[in-house]
Amino acid sequence: MRVLVPQKSLAETLAAVERVVPSRSSNPGMNLVKVDIGHDGLVMSGSNMDVDIRAEVAADVTTSSQEGSPDGGSYAVTAQLFAQVVRSLPGDEVTIEFGETEMHLTSGHYDTKLQLMSAGAAPELTFPTRFAGEVDAEELSRALRAVRYAAAVADFQAVFRGVKFEFTEAGMRTVATDGFRLAYYATELSTGLTGDIIVPAQSVDELLRVLGSGEALLELGDSELSVLHRGVSLNLKLMDGTFPDYERVIPTDFPVSVTLNPSTLAESLARVAVVTDRSSNNRVDLFVKNGQLLITAEGGYGRSQEALAVEQEGSESEIRLSYNSKYLIDALTPIRGDARLRFSGSSSRASVLNDLGDPGYLAMVVPLKLD
Amino acid sequence: MRVLVPQKSLAETLAAVERVVPSRSSNPGMNLVKVDIGHDGLVMSGSNMDVDIRAEVAADVTTSSQEGSPDGGSYAVTAQLFAQVVRSLPGDEVTIEFGETEMHLTSGHYDTKLQLMSAGAAPELTFPTRFAGEVDAEELSRALRAVRYAAAVADFQAVFRGVKFEFTEAGMRTVATDGFRLAYYATELSTGLTGDIIVPAQSVDELLRVLGSGEALLELGDSELSVLHRGVSLNLKLMDGTFPDYERVIPTDFPVSVTLNPSTLAESLARVAVVTDRSSNNRVDLFVKNGQLLITAEGGYGRSQEALAVEQEGSESEIRLSYNSKYLIDALTPIRGDARLRFSGSSSRASVLNDLGDPGYLAMVVPLKLD
Repeated sequence: MRVLVPQKSLAETLAAVERVVPSRSSNPGMNLVKVDIGHDGLVMSGSNMDVDIRAEVAADVTTSSQEGSPDGGSYAVTAQLFAQVVRSLPGDEVTIEFGETEMHLTSGHYDTKLQLMSAGAAPELTFPTRFAGEVDAEELSRALRAVRYAAAVADFQAVFRGVKFEFTEAGMRTVATDGFRLAYYATELSTGLTGDIIVPAQSVDELLRVLGSGEALLELGDSELSVLHRGVSLNLKLMDGTFPDYERVIPTDFPVSVTLNPSTLAESLARVAVVTDRSSNNRVDLFVKNGQLLITAEGGYGRSQEALAVEQEGSESEIRLSYNSKYLIDALTPIRGDARLRFSGSSSRASVLNDLGDPGYLAMVVPLKLD
Repeated sequence: MRVLVPQKSLAETLAAVERVVPSRSSNPGMNLVKVDIGHDGLVMSGSNMDVDIRAEVAADVTTSSQEGSPDGGSYAVTAQLFAQVVRSLPGDEVTIEFGETEMHLTSGHYDTKLQLMSAGAAPELTFPTRFAGEVDAEELSRALRAVRYAAAVADFQAVFRGVKFEFTEAGMRTVATDGFRLAYYATELSTGLTGDIIVPAQSVDELLRVLGSGEALLELGDSELSVLHRGVSLNLKLMDGTFPDYERVIPTDFPVSVTLNPSTLAESLARVAVVTDRSSNNRVDLFVKNGQLLITAEGGYGRSQEALAVEQEGSESEIRLSYNSKYLIDALTPIRGDARLRFSGSSSRASVLNDLGDPGYLAMVVPLKLD
């Protein structure tokens, strides 16, 4: 079996598979990529338990006269080594000959033989062939990037490390929270799916790397969300557990709100927070009065402040609250139009950020409780 | 005391000082930068014990009527915090007012006060005012970059972690070796200095970051080499110890040598070595015969080879030797013209690489001893 394939497309496809497949694993076979030879190309697949990936690359497949149909040849090879070898190839095209125990790659003056294992040594994966749902890939990417930052890195409740998808007939909403801040993104685009699921945030990162432009097909199984986009299939394993009833905690009454450019505010917050000590949770104090937002911070070696002019509603009141500046900056980053910050007026109740350029986005940040 | 200084030049100068000064140190005061206010600018200095740095930045200095001469004001401040604050400033200019216990920085709407310590809290540093030597900074940079890679990262003999400078009336030579490979670079430019010294390779890295174009002034003290270049002074502490008598071990008799493009060879070596196992010292085998250089490698999961056409001298002989491919690639990197590899014909004697485009460079790599 002889396959002629462009180096660039093979390298790119293998890079996507290699990102998912672990380079070392205590589970035998987990570090392998399965290679299936079809009539018009190669299909490569692998898994890291949380995410399965399957990617196709077009190739010229020829069979020598002694062999039968080219369809049906399946092999397994170490994913990282295969990807590294292909990445380093000197020529524009690669010839791969599949033998009994070795695959023989040639390109330019370079020549390598990699050990093959039987396809059965690689994890057995199944990918859906029918998809009940469909979504614009850029819209899905936006909905996930807008909330991804709010998921916890490590927490006692596993669901805090996940992103919730709420599929309804009216649209899709994505939500993430770590208990101190929350972000959601609501679209009115119906995907054709219904149901609430939670996907590990790290699996969302793998999905985000794959999403480009065009349509993405979706299928919801009992234990996984599957996505097919531009020849790449992903199965994202779902998380068990109950996501917090977050809508209940989003305040609805805001005595004061301010509107300003989100980058201006994010840069000021970063600048003022430079003097804070490591132990202070990046604390900055916000003081709103008479159309001015004053940001102050202090640490063991200095103190800083910066005053910004803002459009203030509820100007008869003043607000004095403390925040983790990093949380505010994270919440501002997805905002494309002007940012509106709404203060519930008490340090025990969250403040809410909206994007005046995109009504789908909402972020919530809980002020720091001070001793 | 009031100082008006461009943000960009202050940030760049502080960045150079901050790279040297440790952010935390068990030696009190070691993390401070000393700021001296002169008539026409600020002078900042700090140290990490191995390297002292002193950098000037031009500024408008004004004195209020109650104060005396602006000359002589000296303060100390945490280097990392000062550098971070200045880096994040929003405006093009910074105003700094030096008070009794605080420096007050303002820029745009931003305002910060950093704690000042007395100048005596910072390390006491002296920099030469007279320089006996002089060298072209780009030439010095070339001479150091060409050999830096060959210094050891960690070794029982400290001198292997240093770079030797040999200053003679005929010129300057730089040398580094870790016992398995060696590089030297000889120039015929007389610097005006004489003597052999060893400078820690990490201090050489600091010097390389400072060197741009133009002249660099040199001064050799009892325990340090001082360099003044474009307003930045460095004192590089010297290492004790005896550098190996390296000239004795450079072979002079080479039955076979080959000439080829250094990038072509480096890329082939990297490509072929992909299949090697971690435990193999990146082993590649070189086989030279009839104007062909065949590079082969193998590991637990595969084997690779690539054949390159070379210009061969001593074509009646053939050569079969093994090397750490990383050492060969490092040795090829500084070569600007064609590379000549000269083989002494035995695995116990080093091979020598020359740059046909620059006679000043010589590298030596010891073949791998195989069991």
